[in-house]
Amino acid sequence: MTPEEFRQHGHQVVDWVADYLQAVERFPVLSRADPGEIRAQLPSRAPVQGEPFAALMRDMEEIILPGITHWQSPNFFAFFPCNNSGPSILGDLISSGLGVQGMLWATSPACTELEAHVLDWVVQMLQLPRHFHSDSQGGGVIQDSASSATLCALLAARERASGGETNRRGVGRPLVAYTSDQAHSSVEKAMRIAGLGSQQLRRIGTDEQYAMRPETLADAINRDRQAGQTPCFVAATVGTTSSGAVDPLPSIGEICRRENLWFHVDAAMAGTAAVCPEYRFVHAGLESADSYCFNPHKWMFVNFDCDCFYVRQRDALTQALSILPEYLRNAATESGSVIDYRDWQIPLGRRFRALKLWFVIRSFGVEGIQRVIRRHVALAERFAEWVEADSEFELAAPRALNLVCFRHRGGDSINQQILDRTEKSGALYLTHTRLDDRLVLRLSIGQLNTEQEHVYRAWRLIQRAVREDLPFVEG
Amino acid sequence: MTPEEFRQHGHQVVDWVADYLQAVERFPVLSRADPGEIRAQLPSRAPVQGEPFAALMRDMEEIILPGITHWQSPNFFAFFPCNNSGPSILGDLISSGLGVQGMLWATSPACTELEAHVLDWVVQMLQLPRHFHSDSQGGGVIQDSASSATLCALLAARERASGGETNRRGVGRPLVAYTSDQAHSSVEKAMRIAGLGSQQLRRIGTDEQYAMRPETLADAINRDRQAGQTPCFVAATVGTTSSGAVDPLPSIGEICRRENLWFHVDAAMAGTAAVCPEYRFVHAGLESADSYCFNPHKWMFVNFDCDCFYVRQRDALTQALSILPEYLRNAATESGSVIDYRDWQIPLGRRFRALKLWFVIRSFGVEGIQRVIRRHVALAERFAEWVEADSEFELAAPRALNLVCFRHRGGDSINQQILDRTEKSGALYLTHTRLDDRLVLRLSIGQLNTEQEHVYRAWRLIQRAVREDLPFVEG
Repeated sequence: MTPEEFRQHGHQVVDWVADYLQAVERFPVLSRADPGEIRAQLPSRAPVQGEPFAALMRDMEEIILPGITHWQSPNFFAFFPCNNSGPSILGDLISSGLGVQGMLWATSPACTELEAHVLDWVVQMLQLPRHFHSDSQGGGVIQDSASSATLCALLAARERASGGETNRRGVGRPLVAYTSDQAHSSVEKAMRIAGLGSQQLRRIGTDEQYAMRPETLADAINRDRQAGQTPCFVAATVGTTSSGAVDPLPSIGEICRRENLWFHVDAAMAGTAAVCPEYRFVHAGLESADSYCFNPHKWMFVNFDCDCFYVRQRDALTQALSILPEYLRNAATESGSVIDYRDWQIPLGRRFRALKLWFVIRSFGVEGIQRVIRRHVALAERFAEWVEADSEFELAAPRALNLVCFRHRGGDSINQQILDRTEKSGALYLTHTRLDDRLVLRLSIGQLNTEQEHVYRAWRLIQRAVREDLPFVEG
Repeated sequence: MTPEEFRQHGHQVVDWVADYLQAVERFPVLSRADPGEIRAQLPSRAPVQGEPFAALMRDMEEIILPGITHWQSPNFFAFFPCNNSGPSILGDLISSGLGVQGMLWATSPACTELEAHVLDWVVQMLQLPRHFHSDSQGGGVIQDSASSATLCALLAARERASGGETNRRGVGRPLVAYTSDQAHSSVEKAMRIAGLGSQQLRRIGTDEQYAMRPETLADAINRDRQAGQTPCFVAATVGTTSSGAVDPLPSIGEICRRENLWFHVDAAMAGTAAVCPEYRFVHAGLESADSYCFNPHKWMFVNFDCDCFYVRQRDALTQALSILPEYLRNAATESGSVIDYRDWQIPLGRRFRALKLWFVIRSFGVEGIQRVIRRHVALAERFAEWVEADSEFELAAPRALNLVCFRHRGGDSINQQILDRTEKSGALYLTHTRLDDRLVLRLSIGQLNTEQEHVYRAWRLIQRAVREDLPFVEG
């Protein structure tokens, strides 16, 4: 592909993406492909000769698009939002074009410095504790996901608790970690990866709002200490995946300080809300946290991957993750005056991800981001009112910002039917969870282009799905 | 940003990237920014109001570009190539635009199926062992980097060796792993992360070509068994970072089979060479491998991140990494007829990375990729001849495909001077390593647009740098 061809095809692809984002709400949200259906249309061997670009774009339309579940559709209410936006897509395009490796400061100073800088902006935008700002002993870094952030936090905690012995000699004593019974599976996955084991994770019970009970946490820590175990890490959640519950950070933080445990806070989706002063209550108590993460790739219009991960003591993190082989030695690193982000993460290589975050913040402005967040929360509020006004339905948990957990009062099977019928129709996509062992429907609002008409239509279809199959959307 | 604005700015960004890639060879390769220089030009707070797109692009030019080290420059010979190409950039742009999450098959069937399919193409293109093809009990997945692939392989090995006990109860017995003293630091990093500890990694000595000595490996395993340790994992390298050495896979594989150890092969850069039949010798003995990875984002024109990771038994990998919380349950997963790639990796979320790999393979065709690889190897061959023809210089290791390790015969300080002078000039970028405790210069060829003129100019400047400072490139 010559530069001129790149220019020409590039314009074509930009137009394709623009057309896609304009058309996306008309597609059936969930792909209807059967297992194997996409692969069956692809040739079994790679082409020997290069193919014209038009052939690729034709296959995008005819083979790939029917296999896409449309996360950017305003009718996508499943899981969590994973939104993108024009500025993010273009920032990411520049990152692909520059093709730099940001593993060391020296391998592209702007990649490291823009990242540190924009993560400081975010500290100010969300009014996060000062100790996460890079002019303190802490700082921020972009990770691929909250799962990786949690793992890095756990590794730092593990090394702190073992005085670096685990990195040298392996897990040698029974370290214990704590999280709520509503926490994300990534905490357990991190325990396994770090060699500590699932059984060393205590799943602390939750209250009627599905938030961790601090007194139960304190009891568990005591019991473990008495049994000769070494408590080292607590992961609290701001906005659980199932129901959006917020763990009581102030009391948990106090326990962590008293017991000298690493306190990690995962606010993957809900954290963004703190850009609005009126929702900043979700972070009350965050001052005690040793580490914190939230995902602009969930609810801040930055396309995957972009998790902002902060630590109070950057040394604790780098002591857990740093290795300096000869071929990476360089003057800037040895001067001690620069950040080398390879020591803040699992992989060595890293892409210039700060560009897309920078583009989003500058294009929207803080007020622009606030406007969208407020609209999403208002829409969820409205939806929750409709649920409460319908005697056949009920809320299954308090509305949590942009997430509504609800159910038909008729029991699991009717709720399963609602799920199946809405999914099949293609008109909207909900997912489920279980709370108190009952099936619960989740409506999560966060796509950039979701407006009241989409939420209202979703509600009308949900009501209708109680009684009948829904018509298919013809994409 | 309205759809129309996205279209307009998108065209502008495509043109910017095209212009950049056409101009890149004229820039000083290594950024001349001092620590803090980029940040000092950025406002300390995020903008309250959105800014016009023109302001972003102006700052890209004026602030960011001077802070970029130009990995796509044909004069970049440092570390390893990390190349991109037009088709890759555009495939990645579509991925950003679609904004899908590929964590489950159901969350976008095409994302999973295209990935499995294209990774099967690669098995055929590189003539990898059949057991890495998805129609066997194994298969492939895209990871962000070889570091993560190595970690996943080690976790699978750890669980196999402990019968799943480590995931449940934590590291409970002294598991040992082996790699050469030339292996990448990612092996040690994985040992630390997995809770096994650096001390449990045996660094096996290498021969005069810097390849692992299999008899030393066998001895170490015996010694460990006698000491009551449990050997579980061997990581061999095809193309070491320092000198491109290839460990003797046939003998190592035989030892692993006999001793029942997980055999992982890391061919991060060199693996791509196997697309050419004449270089396929690098993979001789790969039939014994339990897992294998190489990075199309290094030397196959796919922009970061794209590491192809294969396992012989996919169950061994997913048993190590799978957790299924309620909110991810779905009919397709429960049918057992689909791949859910979240169980093949550390994070949960994943981007549609197969698109860029698919676009590259189809646009170049297998022959197109072969042509570039052959050109790069021929250029390295030529460079090595020039080194050998100059009595002041010598090769420091046998040329390894596209990598030449060499030095001035005058000792470390003159070689350091060559490094410093070339780096300062901006005309080319070399990096170094140490072999047998002597400073060695590395010239690694792999950018898409590197031609003989660039390599020849680099050689002339290196010769000149022995005697004098080099003129600055004015970017």
